[in-house]
Amino acid sequence: MLNTSDFSSHLSRVQASEQAINSSGKLHAAADYLPLAQAHLAPELWAYLAQGDSGRNQQALERFCIMPRPLRQLQSGHTSLTLFGQRFEHPFLLAPIAYQRLFHNDGEIGTALAAGAQGAGLVVSSLASQALEDIALAMRQSDGRHSGGTSPCFQLYWQGNRERTLTLLRRAEEAGYAAVMFTVDAPVKVVSLQLPDGIRAVNLSAYGEKSGERETEGEPRLRSSSVFQTWMAKAPNWEDVAWLRRQTELPLLIKGLLHPNDAEQAVSLGCDGIVVSNHGERVLRGAPTSLASLPAIVKTVNGRVPILFDSGIRCGRDAFVALAFGATAVMVGRPYVAGLVCGGALGVAHVIRLLRDELELTMALAGCAELRDINHECINDMN
Amino acid sequence: MLNTSDFSSHLSRVQASEQAINSSGKLHAAADYLPLAQAHLAPELWAYLAQGDSGRNQQALERFCIMPRPLRQLQSGHTSLTLFGQRFEHPFLLAPIAYQRLFHNDGEIGTALAAGAQGAGLVVSSLASQALEDIALAMRQSDGRHSGGTSPCFQLYWQGNRERTLTLLRRAEEAGYAAVMFTVDAPVKVVSLQLPDGIRAVNLSAYGEKSGERETEGEPRLRSSSVFQTWMAKAPNWEDVAWLRRQTELPLLIKGLLHPNDAEQAVSLGCDGIVVSNHGERVLRGAPTSLASLPAIVKTVNGRVPILFDSGIRCGRDAFVALAFGATAVMVGRPYVAGLVCGGALGVAHVIRLLRDELELTMALAGCAELRDINHECINDMN
Amino acid sequence: MLNTSDFSSHLSRVQASEQAINSSGKLHAAADYLPLAQAHLAPELWAYLAQGDSGRNQQALERFCIMPRPLRQLQSGHTSLTLFGQRFEHPFLLAPIAYQRLFHNDGEIGTALAAGAQGAGLVVSSLASQALEDIALAMRQSDGRHSGGTSPCFQLYWQGNRERTLTLLRRAEEAGYAAVMFTVDAPVKVVSLQLPDGIRAVNLSAYGEKSGERETEGEPRLRSSSVFQTWMAKAPNWEDVAWLRRQTELPLLIKGLLHPNDAEQAVSLGCDGIVVSNHGERVLRGAPTSLASLPAIVKTVNGRVPILFDSGIRCGRDAFVALAFGATAVMVGRPYVAGLVCGGALGVAHVIRLLRDELELTMALAGCAELRDINHECINDMN
Amino acid sequence: MLNTSDFSSHLSRVQASEQAINSSGKLHAAADYLPLAQAHLAPELWAYLAQGDSGRNQQALERFCIMPRPLRQLQSGHTSLTLFGQRFEHPFLLAPIAYQRLFHNDGEIGTALAAGAQGAGLVVSSLASQALEDIALAMRQSDGRHSGGTSPCFQLYWQGNRERTLTLLRRAEEAGYAAVMFTVDAPVKVVSLQLPDGIRAVNLSAYGEKSGERETEGEPRLRSSSVFQTWMAKAPNWEDVAWLRRQTELPLLIKGLLHPNDAEQAVSLGCDGIVVSNHGERVLRGAPTSLASLPAIVKTVNGRVPILFDSGIRCGRDAFVALAFGATAVMVGRPYVAGLVCGGALGVAHVIRLLRDELELTMALAGCAELRDINHECINDMN
Repeated sequence: MLNTSDFSSHLSRVQASEQAINSSGKLHAAADYLPLAQAHLAPELWAYLAQGDSGRNQQALERFCIMPRPLRQLQSGHTSLTLFGQRFEHPFLLAPIAYQRLFHNDGEIGTALAAGAQGAGLVVSSLASQALEDIALAMRQSDGRHSGGTSPCFQLYWQGNRERTLTLLRRAEEAGYAAVMFTVDAPVKVVSLQLPDGIRAVNLSAYGEKSGERETEGEPRLRSSSVFQTWMAKAPNWEDVAWLRRQTELPLLIKGLLHPNDAEQAVSLGCDGIVVSNHGERVLRGAPTSLASLPAIVKTVNGRVPILFDSGIRCGRDAFVALAFGATAVMVGRPYVAGLVCGGALGVAHVIRLLRDELELTMALAGCAELRDINHECINDMN
Repeated sequence: MLNTSDFSSHLSRVQASEQAINSSGKLHAAADYLPLAQAHLAPELWAYLAQGDSGRNQQALERFCIMPRPLRQLQSGHTSLTLFGQRFEHPFLLAPIAYQRLFHNDGEIGTALAAGAQGAGLVVSSLASQALEDIALAMRQSDGRHSGGTSPCFQLYWQGNRERTLTLLRRAEEAGYAAVMFTVDAPVKVVSLQLPDGIRAVNLSAYGEKSGERETEGEPRLRSSSVFQTWMAKAPNWEDVAWLRRQTELPLLIKGLLHPNDAEQAVSLGCDGIVVSNHGERVLRGAPTSLASLPAIVKTVNGRVPILFDSGIRCGRDAFVALAFGATAVMVGRPYVAGLVCGGALGVAHVIRLLRDELELTMALAGCAELRDINHECINDMN
Repeated sequence: MLNTSDFSSHLSRVQASEQAINSSGKLHAAADYLPLAQAHLAPELWAYLAQGDSGRNQQALERFCIMPRPLRQLQSGHTSLTLFGQRFEHPFLLAPIAYQRLFHNDGEIGTALAAGAQGAGLVVSSLASQALEDIALAMRQSDGRHSGGTSPCFQLYWQGNRERTLTLLRRAEEAGYAAVMFTVDAPVKVVSLQLPDGIRAVNLSAYGEKSGERETEGEPRLRSSSVFQTWMAKAPNWEDVAWLRRQTELPLLIKGLLHPNDAEQAVSLGCDGIVVSNHGERVLRGAPTSLASLPAIVKTVNGRVPILFDSGIRCGRDAFVALAFGATAVMVGRPYVAGLVCGGALGVAHVIRLLRDELELTMALAGCAELRDINHECINDMN
Repeated sequence: MLNTSDFSSHLSRVQASEQAINSSGKLHAAADYLPLAQAHLAPELWAYLAQGDSGRNQQALERFCIMPRPLRQLQSGHTSLTLFGQRFEHPFLLAPIAYQRLFHNDGEIGTALAAGAQGAGLVVSSLASQALEDIALAMRQSDGRHSGGTSPCFQLYWQGNRERTLTLLRRAEEAGYAAVMFTVDAPVKVVSLQLPDGIRAVNLSAYGEKSGERETEGEPRLRSSSVFQTWMAKAPNWEDVAWLRRQTELPLLIKGLLHPNDAEQAVSLGCDGIVVSNHGERVLRGAPTSLASLPAIVKTVNGRVPILFDSGIRCGRDAFVALAFGATAVMVGRPYVAGLVCGGALGVAHVIRLLRDELELTMALAGCAELRDINHECINDMN
């Protein structure tokens, strides 16, 4: 674990970050970090980060326009919300991205410091490259607002069987994670990256290290046995979800649902939230966009649990559109990793701030004083 | 102020301008000036001029085709109209563009000379870089048609409170402006340009100079306070519109409305005209196009006040389409500034003439003898 | 006039042409001539030829797909038709293109030789660069099928008043033209080409030479008088059409109609055919495509007179689509001029042959044995 | 004929192939072979292979998205099916491609070895460049699963009359072909390739060698006689189909139907299967896509015979979409030829394996355990 003095020094750098980064005068929008990151990153790492992204998620979001409503009274406006028992200043959560030390030496701890300092939610990947306890601690300590700070959510990948999965869950609970986000849409994911020495999924057992993303690196294609007898034999199913629900009292979210029947099933099993996501198009080429899938799920869930929107958010305007369609909050992935690439924790902090400012600007121009004012009437289809 | 002899010399140059500019043989259409201006202008100035322009406004206009109706009697055709008590030869108004000395030393006075000489309407920005009295005088003196000439309209930005706003309004009234156009859609506008020495909003008080566009240059992003507590606290609201309406007997237009309910509100408060505009896409990225917003406003206003169309007009054909959808007149911005860049007052004059010729050609081929003949039956959707 | 021995020598070259040109092995389709012509032609001449062509006419045609219907009996299939009293082997007519000596020294006479040899219809422009009598003679003499050969149609531009128009009409009648095609959609047409020495509209009076296309070269823009008082004052109107109808017993076609009401008016005045055309987009930017306009005119005319389709035909497949929508025959312009550029009369002959072969191939694959088998059921919208 | 020891040596190379090829680490998807083949192939051969391919077939397939359905039980999933009396491990058939020795010296025998080794169906072209008996033998011997192995299907082109057609059919029957696929959509096909010495349609009589694709190489265009009197006089018709049906007891499929009435006619004449195909766009430019045509044929055939889908399949995802629309199996052409170009039999084997893996991955993520689970509910239109 890092000691507290490391934190303090890192934290003061984060708090000074926006001024420093912004003085370059080139980074006016969260999306500006993406091309900059591409320029900085080794090509194979950029390819890994960008993998699958055809731009369709973003196009779906950009297709809607936002109606300006000037001359309204908005001085008391704000973007705050309560989610799973914690209060956040704005509706952006940092999505679980694996192996963050690939992108910057600050790694997941840097991301956590930035999230805490800027009031963002954080979801830590099962495939984190740093100890999950250190990451949670970093977030709590960098958050100046609360006594004790905000805690992150833990993203859980199925570990092949219930025993190993439970071991990982218990470790997250003990580290004080505030919720569990169970990712169910990636039983099979082909990744071509060879992890460099020294970067690995440090929180997983020997089995686990080889499960999840790493195990799937192209190998099954050479086997004569089929996808069904290999990968799918180790994938979780709805009975496992029901079992998992019984194992923890933490809020349990299911990430990676696009069909309303699956959302209904999750709610009926007692899950506390749905993450509508097509996994940034990394898993199934040509899956529906998250936005196309959102309305039917919103209708089915009908307010029983919060719905988080993931995949394609590049700016505050995108978040506005997702919220207008009924999402409670939004997750961002590649943009904050771009910030991590460019400036470590400082970069992540700046990306969060920019996203928040962009959302506030959009709300102000659209005449919305609070998140609940953002609805279907605020947008229309450009076509 | 300029003295009259300055005017005379400038004016004779303007009147000789078209021949000179056209002899180059390259500028056959108003839109031809835009790439030429891009080639002439410093990149950061072009970026400032083009900012936000995704081409969506123009695409919306170009999507409609115009039905040729040959063999009609059109010898007595014309394009003239009466607007807010003044007679114009054609329905083009020059939109309020800030700091025109950025683009050519002739500045707003050059634009005014051209407008007067070519019979165009003119709207002078609160952020003009020359004295508003000189600009009005230039327009009146260059207009050979009328005794006394045509007077410009004054574009008013809210000055943070009523007192400062009233001071500015009174000055415009005293200078003989013919109408007031209150821009309400830009309480928050991010501009990255650093104004060069010697170019500033000379008509504003010390407060005002820092308000409007300049104040918004990126700074709030570094504050921990939100958009709502900063910019929006100084923005006008509907009560301010009602107050403003009571302060002046000049015609009062509201610029920057896209929603029919807002247009209804403006009319019900006694405003004399609506400018349908998305501010050339400079303010809210992904706002609806002006053309998409026009029909609902035309239907709601139902002829009670004139409706001006702004954003995206690049040629006479575009103007024809906007008029066919119910606009009374159209405002042009970037094209005439491109003329200013390329040829000062001469360039602006040529752009206006080209726009007018293009509109006349379109009307002649569409079988329309007067502006009121231009209606929905003249166009159809290409799709 | 050319004498007969000139004709014979030229004609034998035309008849040998296809073999020679095709041996290059590069020209498999009529459309292949267009890029080749662009490569051969001086840029300003290509610009003149291509002027206005945005590709929308072709896109409209390509949007429809053709349903293959294999296994039908088609051995006795053919493409012949009777039009205005003459028999043609196929439904392609060469459109009236001005000043063809700009493109090849063979000029209109070369085009006429090719049309006669390949059984195409021919429409000769008022702005031909060779004597209209010589052109008609060339066509008749090169047509080996008929006793006396096929005669061309004369395209008539209004000559500013009835007297001059009648003079031109009478000359065409005396030269044995088989029909008159009155072009009504181009009272105003901006052309930037400066004609080279020795190329002019030789069939027009001193007035006429300056009328039509040449007169309109950019000049009116510098006048303070409007389009209405200049060009439109010399344009024909429906009363002139009625007058013209009374002046000749030849079949009279009206070229340049897109609105069904105008087609109805033409038929009710006794005209013998309608040419649905947007003048290859040369006149009114953003006019509807010819194909978009065809169905309503077909419905209105309802078989009373033949309907010719013009603008956008680049291959036999395009012709098939136009015929499926109800056209009786099609006119081609730019493709045959491309043939003229590349190979004079030989090139034109080859283009006609390719178009005919392409149409036959398409018909055979679509299971159509005759032109009258081509109907709406043969095509469907790709969308 | 090849002797058995040749087969054995070749076969062991095929079986070792995937490991070798995949070790390059660049070929992760079947579609990756296409650009690689383009880089390897002489430009005129690539042009011949790619001819007509505008990408519309693929675009039609890609327009549909596939709905992920995680958390289902799929361990017992598989992709096997029975077709015309033979059992296949997966629904991919290799389409009949002419003259495969143009692409690799392994030729059709290499393709057959790969098909047998990887459990794919195979359709051998009438225009094969190797003896049809050798090809069938190669396939049977490389298939380790069955006693006797799987037999290919023979693609039959009409040989100008019934007698010659029957001769060819009898030869295929004697060589043990399992079915006949009669291609009816290409009576007229323009191909510009000049076959190199030593590559010819070795299975055809002197007549036949000149029929089919080769005879059509551009020549008819120079004839004054029409397409109808030449090509169509030698094309088969529905009476010939009825006659052919009576000549053989093998399953008879008709390839190249897009209209439901033609499918109905084929079924009513006793045919055993329909191949919905636009011949990879090689025959009629702008024919409907295979996918656009599939639903009406599925509805008309209503399960009476299997429907094979051809044209545009580039990956397992594409196959999933075609199956979801009601196809029983899919044919692939250009992708496996790309494999042949890059690695002979080894390359073809790898392409088949990749396609199968891609289909399995897609099924697993879409929650489908068997081919019959793939239906309309699995996909939706992205628009």
